[in-house]
Amino acid sequence: MENQRTELSALGEFGLIRRIQSQAVPHNPETIRGIGDDAAVIGHADGQQVLLSTDMLLEGVHFDLSYTPLPHLGYKAVAVNVSDIAAMYGIPKQIVVGLAVSNRFSVEAIDALYTGIRAACDDYKVDLVGGDTTSSRAGLVISVSVIGLCEPEKVVYRNTAKPTDILCVTGDLGGAYVGLQVLEREKQVFMQDPDMQPELTGKEYILQRQLRPSARMDIIHELRELGVVPTAMIDLSDGLASDVLHIARQSGVGVALFEDKLPIDSMTYQTAVEMNIDPVTCALNGGEDYELLFTIRQADFEKVKNHADISFIGYIQEASAGEFLVTKNGNRVSLQAQGWTHF
Amino acid sequence: MENQRTELSALGEFGLIRRIQSQAVPHNPETIRGIGDDAAVIGHADGQQVLLSTDMLLEGVHFDLSYTPLPHLGYKAVAVNVSDIAAMYGIPKQIVVGLAVSNRFSVEAIDALYTGIRAACDDYKVDLVGGDTTSSRAGLVISVSVIGLCEPEKVVYRNTAKPTDILCVTGDLGGAYVGLQVLEREKQVFMQDPDMQPELTGKEYILQRQLRPSARMDIIHELRELGVVPTAMIDLSDGLASDVLHIARQSGVGVALFEDKLPIDSMTYQTAVEMNIDPVTCALNGGEDYELLFTIRQADFEKVKNHADISFIGYIQEASAGEFLVTKNGNRVSLQAQGWTHF
Repeated sequence: MENQRTELSALGEFGLIRRIQSQAVPHNPETIRGIGDDAAVIGHADGQQVLLSTDMLLEGVHFDLSYTPLPHLGYKAVAVNVSDIAAMYGIPKQIVVGLAVSNRFSVEAIDALYTGIRAACDDYKVDLVGGDTTSSRAGLVISVSVIGLCEPEKVVYRNTAKPTDILCVTGDLGGAYVGLQVLEREKQVFMQDPDMQPELTGKEYILQRQLRPSARMDIIHELRELGVVPTAMIDLSDGLASDVLHIARQSGVGVALFEDKLPIDSMTYQTAVEMNIDPVTCALNGGEDYELLFTIRQADFEKVKNHADISFIGYIQEASAGEFLVTKNGNRVSLQAQGWTHF
Repeated sequence: MENQRTELSALGEFGLIRRIQSQAVPHNPETIRGIGDDAAVIGHADGQQVLLSTDMLLEGVHFDLSYTPLPHLGYKAVAVNVSDIAAMYGIPKQIVVGLAVSNRFSVEAIDALYTGIRAACDDYKVDLVGGDTTSSRAGLVISVSVIGLCEPEKVVYRNTAKPTDILCVTGDLGGAYVGLQVLEREKQVFMQDPDMQPELTGKEYILQRQLRPSARMDIIHELRELGVVPTAMIDLSDGLASDVLHIARQSGVGVALFEDKLPIDSMTYQTAVEMNIDPVTCALNGGEDYELLFTIRQADFEKVKNHADISFIGYIQEASAGEFLVTKNGNRVSLQAQGWTHF
């Protein structure tokens, strides 16, 4: 197929909405009415609480279209919202998408974005039920809001960790940050010499961590099957240190974190070293990994201790015992958040 | 009090979130947890369906900060979302707010915006339960998503109008559009000569229609008290003609609209004439009035016929009878949508 370009003006706003609507097929029986009216209608689910969250991604702040494929971006916009529902121990059900695009975008570009949105909807079994599409004079903006459900007694907050709880994290850390550094480096090389091809071979894993992160719904389903309800949980968007401190401070407890327990993928480690960045700093302060950070009671440890994708990285202690990192050589250093400062 | 300016960087992202959180006091008992976790938690309400909608406002597209007071803008961002819930016959309950601001904004500016958001939350009894705050390199973006509730048998869609139904509209039409023309005119005058003071006295009503529109929840509550459930409903955002055609085409019916029944406020009328714009065109095609357009069965007419703020502007007919406007001199002209084209 040749690369087609259809101007958005050829479709018009309502044409674009109909196009999006026709491709949104619901997964959930309680999705009574999706796109096409003033609001989506969702059947009430007995004995459940409704979870609601929103996240906005802006061009030039959260993504750079010079190296971000649009399907990946659409996928990410959904995944980061699903991740917020996962972090409450909930099951995501419906999303609405607010989209602002300039007329430099073609219909094919919007289709590519929605291809990723739909792929994420399929992976996480969520229904696209509505949205708002408008023009932008200043870059692409994607705002997704998500509804999820959870049994009232199982909702996991971030402020309920207790001393002696074990601190757990899924997957590995720092990959999204190192992936971003690679993309930025190759962009600089390309801008200085457009004949240079970017050197991205062998970096697929960390690039995917940055460009197309996964929400860890797999872990939520597994914990549910194992009968493990964490005592507190948050998803890693700001960076491990910052998010550990969120749990500790909001729970009114202290925390000990062990440097030698931090899960770092070998590609993340090696690439960080190549680029003269400290891999541990990447793991502690690199954001956007969208892994789950949670605490469990010691009584639940047996149920999860052999899980291949959960690392046990520390423990919760009394507030008076402080918040510290135990380094590889056994020193205790104060835990500091160096997450992203947006302003 | 002197005009203070506190840099956003002095608060930081989390400081800003805490500031917003501390000022968000819930109205609804089912709001179990609001701002401060990965997602809001909303208690499930027996026998109700959940409504979900989202709307995004962008600087330079939907508003011009040179004449838009920030509290009005915050109010409007909530009101346009509440209006979508009203248009489903629902009761709005919770909102989440996504906000992207550049660092040229001060903390006081964000406070002013949230003053308006809170005023709307108070007026419509909705709870601000979460959000996402980020930086923007390109102007202010506000994305609001709203949850509402409605009894399953009372949800009003836009595609269920039936022949012989009476077409009704609340309030008056065209004011928001004429208000915008006044603001744009005065901006041009000011830009050509900054010593000129804008001539806005006496135009308060139409300026408010543009800058701080109301959602017609009052009408929804009254219709509920009267026991009137419309057969179809939509809120007027694109313009009367466009929204009448939405109802007609999605319902598979025709419609007759009477020019002499269109409610036009005298200030709207007079200002349009002063500016050499046709007031009827403003009423038909000016957008953003956020009034409710709905159809009722003839049997319900007695219950609402004396309502001071509802006008009866036409009727629904078989699709084969067409979509037309009956002009003041009795001519039938084809009804055309000339709403906003974003792209």
